[in-house]
Amino acid sequence: MAKLEGKAVVAQGGGPTAVINQSLAGVVIEARKFTQVSRVYGAVNGVAGIVKEEFMDLTQETTHNLEQLARTPSSALLSTREKPDAEYCARIFKVLKAHDVRYFFYIGGNDSADTARIVNQNAEAAGYDLRCVHIPKTIDNDLVINDHTPGYPSAARFVSLAFMGVNLDNRALPGVYIAVVMGRHAGFLTAASSLGRAYDDDGPHLIYLPERPFSLERFLGDVDRVMGQHGRCVVAVSEGINDGAGEPIMTQLTKEIERDAHGNVQLSGTGALGDLLANEVRQQLKIKRVRADTFGYLQRSFAGVVSDVDQNEAREVGEKAVQFALWRDVDGSVTIHRTGNYSVDYQMTPLAEIAAKTKHMPDEFINEAGNDVTPAFYGYGRPLLGSGMHLPTRVRAPRVGKLLG
Amino acid sequence: MAKLEGKAVVAQGGGPTAVINQSLAGVVIEARKFTQVSRVYGAVNGVAGIVKEEFMDLTQETTHNLEQLARTPSSALLSTREKPDAEYCARIFKVLKAHDVRYFFYIGGNDSADTARIVNQNAEAAGYDLRCVHIPKTIDNDLVINDHTPGYPSAARFVSLAFMGVNLDNRALPGVYIAVVMGRHAGFLTAASSLGRAYDDDGPHLIYLPERPFSLERFLGDVDRVMGQHGRCVVAVSEGINDGAGEPIMTQLTKEIERDAHGNVQLSGTGALGDLLANEVRQQLKIKRVRADTFGYLQRSFAGVVSDVDQNEAREVGEKAVQFALWRDVDGSVTIHRTGNYSVDYQMTPLAEIAAKTKHMPDEFINEAGNDVTPAFYGYGRPLLGSGMHLPTRVRAPRVGKLLG
Repeated sequence: MAKLEGKAVVAQGGGPTAVINQSLAGVVIEARKFTQVSRVYGAVNGVAGIVKEEFMDLTQETTHNLEQLARTPSSALLSTREKPDAEYCARIFKVLKAHDVRYFFYIGGNDSADTARIVNQNAEAAGYDLRCVHIPKTIDNDLVINDHTPGYPSAARFVSLAFMGVNLDNRALPGVYIAVVMGRHAGFLTAASSLGRAYDDDGPHLIYLPERPFSLERFLGDVDRVMGQHGRCVVAVSEGINDGAGEPIMTQLTKEIERDAHGNVQLSGTGALGDLLANEVRQQLKIKRVRADTFGYLQRSFAGVVSDVDQNEAREVGEKAVQFALWRDVDGSVTIHRTGNYSVDYQMTPLAEIAAKTKHMPDEFINEAGNDVTPAFYGYGRPLLGSGMHLPTRVRAPRVGKLLG
Repeated sequence: MAKLEGKAVVAQGGGPTAVINQSLAGVVIEARKFTQVSRVYGAVNGVAGIVKEEFMDLTQETTHNLEQLARTPSSALLSTREKPDAEYCARIFKVLKAHDVRYFFYIGGNDSADTARIVNQNAEAAGYDLRCVHIPKTIDNDLVINDHTPGYPSAARFVSLAFMGVNLDNRALPGVYIAVVMGRHAGFLTAASSLGRAYDDDGPHLIYLPERPFSLERFLGDVDRVMGQHGRCVVAVSEGINDGAGEPIMTQLTKEIERDAHGNVQLSGTGALGDLLANEVRQQLKIKRVRADTFGYLQRSFAGVVSDVDQNEAREVGEKAVQFALWRDVDGSVTIHRTGNYSVDYQMTPLAEIAAKTKHMPDEFINEAGNDVTPAFYGYGRPLLGSGMHLPTRVRAPRVGKLLG
């Protein structure tokens, strides 16, 4: 078989993560080793940059700077929210062909996998040899077939450390504390709030996921019960909680709904959901100290809170993407498979099996009442957080007897 | 001079910080070395625990667990928002006297310094020998005389890393991003948003502090100008921004105002201010992608984002408090003084000079337009962030010529 010679293009799509540039560095450093790859281009702003022919020649980037980039959060090649349709994908293909691109690596979520799939179809229809490889990335952890996706472990580490801290804060100054966590359809990131618990009575005491219908009445009942039990209550809520029919709880309170190019309602970048829930607790349960935070964009791009497991895997999926395409001459999506406790392997999965599909939290990870995770989730999530996790402790000294009363 | 023999009590007041237990460990470990200290008690829930005689005997706490506690964020002895008046302070003194307490160490802000001062007056009036020492702590950094206060450097590190990340995120997916930072009267923490900038056009592009009157018109004009210049805009806003007459911008939009025991309006624990400003930008400037986050409680108790400079100093002020009280037999507040770039020294300052006073950002740290900091602030703030600060980088590869047009 003759080697497929030509250029490689790498692009990043969708929401950034803390380790998305590890995958970029993995692709570029590995691709530069192959003589049949004449150039490695980076598309600026994802697919939008491809159709506008906005490329940077990463063959002329220092290895040191690529390693520095790998440790810098958020898409170094910049990103896009554009969702290519068939016509858009045809334009992508036209540009790739004009530049004699033979390898297309797209780092992104399930929408990006779908784009890679359609571009691949265009190439096949034109009889043009083009390897299209999707490299997984999403803090939502909602790609099917994958055990988990790069970006999720670091975001999960952030969320678990955040809840570890606010739980300690809430213990020192009791009341109700509600925090809203990212995750439109999948509750994995919200579930990570549980991974910071150390003591039996540590919060979050309640966890609400998009996978279960949310009822305000049950929520208030839960908070009331926890307050009676612990005198305080820490709650983790997914931004994507809905009424069970798919209608976000969020839309029940926002007058002007902003929708993105994908037709999705804007859930992040506002404190509205947290404030609504806090007001309900304040008014219905007559609790004075009620606070609500929305973790927002900190979760996906915080500099300095990164899981080393995530860093390594994000690097490897980029490197494997090149190896699969160059050594095996196949298209597909690089998928992560857990092979032990804890070890992983990488496989090449057909694009159609990943594209535009959404994974949800499996039932075994959600408790029966739908307001917490199960111990099975701990087994799944903890190894992902990486090494050097913080361990909180409490004073264990004995109490002193009262002298006055 | 006869040595003052008896028990020591340590307590923590007000909002927690990431390093407040370093000061606790510093007090306990040092105080246990002195034979004239018969016991070291920890008051549970600050002064509220003293009046209720809720003590733990920290003489019977392992050194290992104290070291573990030192690395755990948020008041390990739990806290209180109660603000003692003269009668309350008399009750504190009564309990301390009953338990033969001769050394009282109170870790807290300017309210706590005031409490220590009044308790001290009670003891003097009663002819009872009692050393009262205030140990500084506040993420707001608003204690007078101190160059800075323990807790601030770690919170500043969190805020600067948070802005470093959201700036990269905003660069990848442009628009207007507004984040609200804690700090009721002093803008030091909001100013720390500037310390994560690496490149000339890095955000935050605008910084609004409580020290300057906030005008919605000027704010919108600023955002409009920055959008024209960079096509994106990252804004840091203090929760305490006000109209110049001391009226918080926050109160202009909230119907039900919650006030704490000190009569302060609740500013934290709600996304309302950020959402208001985002809506104004969206409506007045017709900008589509506008996001607002409120960093909230993450800033003061995040596990794992700590400045080592802060850790060391928080430990030392606790240790020095004991040394001043035991070796020099004096009351006062331990204050931090910068003696080089970067080095500090600790002094004992009379309680009345610290108590109930508030420091603000000096004029030299605020730019003329009142929408940014000056380079002088960098010189002040950067050494406090500690070692191992993240350094972001960008792709430096050359652009590729277009083939299609």
